[in-house]
Amino acid sequence: MEKSTVRTTKHNELIEITDIVNSVIRKAGVKSGICHIFVPHTTCGLTINENADPSVKADIIAKLEQLVPVNDSYSHFEGNSDAHIKSSIFGHSLIVFVENGSLCLGTWQGIFLCEFDGPRTRQVWFKILSQ
Amino acid sequence: MEKSTVRTTKHNELIEITDIVNSVIRKAGVKSGICHIFVPHTTCGLTINENADPSVKADIIAKLEQLVPVNDSYSHFEGNSDAHIKSSIFGHSLIVFVENGSLCLGTWQGIFLCEFDGPRTRQVWFKILSQ
Amino acid sequence: MEKSTVRTTKHNELIEITDIVNSVIRKAGVKSGICHIFVPHTTCGLTINENADPSVKADIIAKLEQLVPVNDSYSHFEGNSDAHIKSSIFGHSLIVFVENGSLCLGTWQGIFLCEFDGPRTRQVWFKILSQ
Repeated sequence: MEKSTVRTTKHNELIEITDIVNSVIRKAGVKSGICHIFVPHTTCGLTINENADPSVKADIIAKLEQLVPVNDSYSHFEGNSDAHIKSSIFGHSLIVFVENGSLCLGTWQGIFLCEFDGPRTRQVWFKILSQ
Repeated sequence: MEKSTVRTTKHNELIEITDIVNSVIRKAGVKSGICHIFVPHTTCGLTINENADPSVKADIIAKLEQLVPVNDSYSHFEGNSDAHIKSSIFGHSLIVFVENGSLCLGTWQGIFLCEFDGPRTRQVWFKILSQ
Repeated sequence: MEKSTVRTTKHNELIEITDIVNSVIRKAGVKSGICHIFVPHTTCGLTINENADPSVKADIIAKLEQLVPVNDSYSHFEGNSDAHIKSSIFGHSLIVFVENGSLCLGTWQGIFLCEFDGPRTRQVWFKILSQ
């Protein structure tokens, strides 16, 4: 398993980690397979979305905050129930394809760590299975 | 990697692709493993749900449109922020089990491409890892 | 493929299945790989979240019920459209890492079956691919 550390700087933030995934795949030397990405946390998630216009990230964060606001009638004492819920909606893992030793994404796709309770230092785990 | 093309005909639409997945698995000849399905887009997703009563698809689309309406106070200039958000909520990949050379689903399950910004021509990617 | 049965007791309920996943992994004897978890249903899902404070589970259920209420203007005749929608939001599968023959989770993470239309008897399927 490969591990990487991502430092988030805001309470809610999408941080692109595509370059990290690319370097993990290159280092592994796997020609064809699946790269599994996992965050060992309960208040952040992972997603794939557009990395060209940063307003997409802002719209995602704003809509999630509107649907699952940080202040609501939650019972969890730590005050971050919204982050727990948002992370389950987006999920804690991703799979991406590896072909010819390289990460395969669509033209507009980037891979993002979704911080919902930052700023924090987050871990990202990787494991590549060969075809 | 296998690739397939799906033509969507509406702005929001769930199109069943179970037959495509079945034929990809049969063609691969893998006896036991995992079939990974991935859409290389940022305004469509994938999901598993009931394929018996078409009203389930209609209810999914209507609820998503209510929670993440196409017209809202978004900043992304292309006017399809709702589609970006919906695709991250549902996700861009699926895993399904292969046993005895066949796709394993529950009795009521079908596999759907979720178009949130159609009509468009969409690609679906497949990669099967053997056990 | 390994199969396990989970009996749910409420209409909406998150049931921790981490112990089941642990025993499936130990029984398989795979040293390093990915454990795939899948529910062959359309009205329940799977998620990873905090298993220390049970109020996190309660907050997740309450927020989902607020966003996708059981009673709304749905067209599906069975009266469980909310459960279909919630299961697509959370998803029907999970991947978790196996290292040194053991399940790898973050400190606060547990694995949960998400019942949205119980009480019912649910199946959970497992397949481990070795690295």
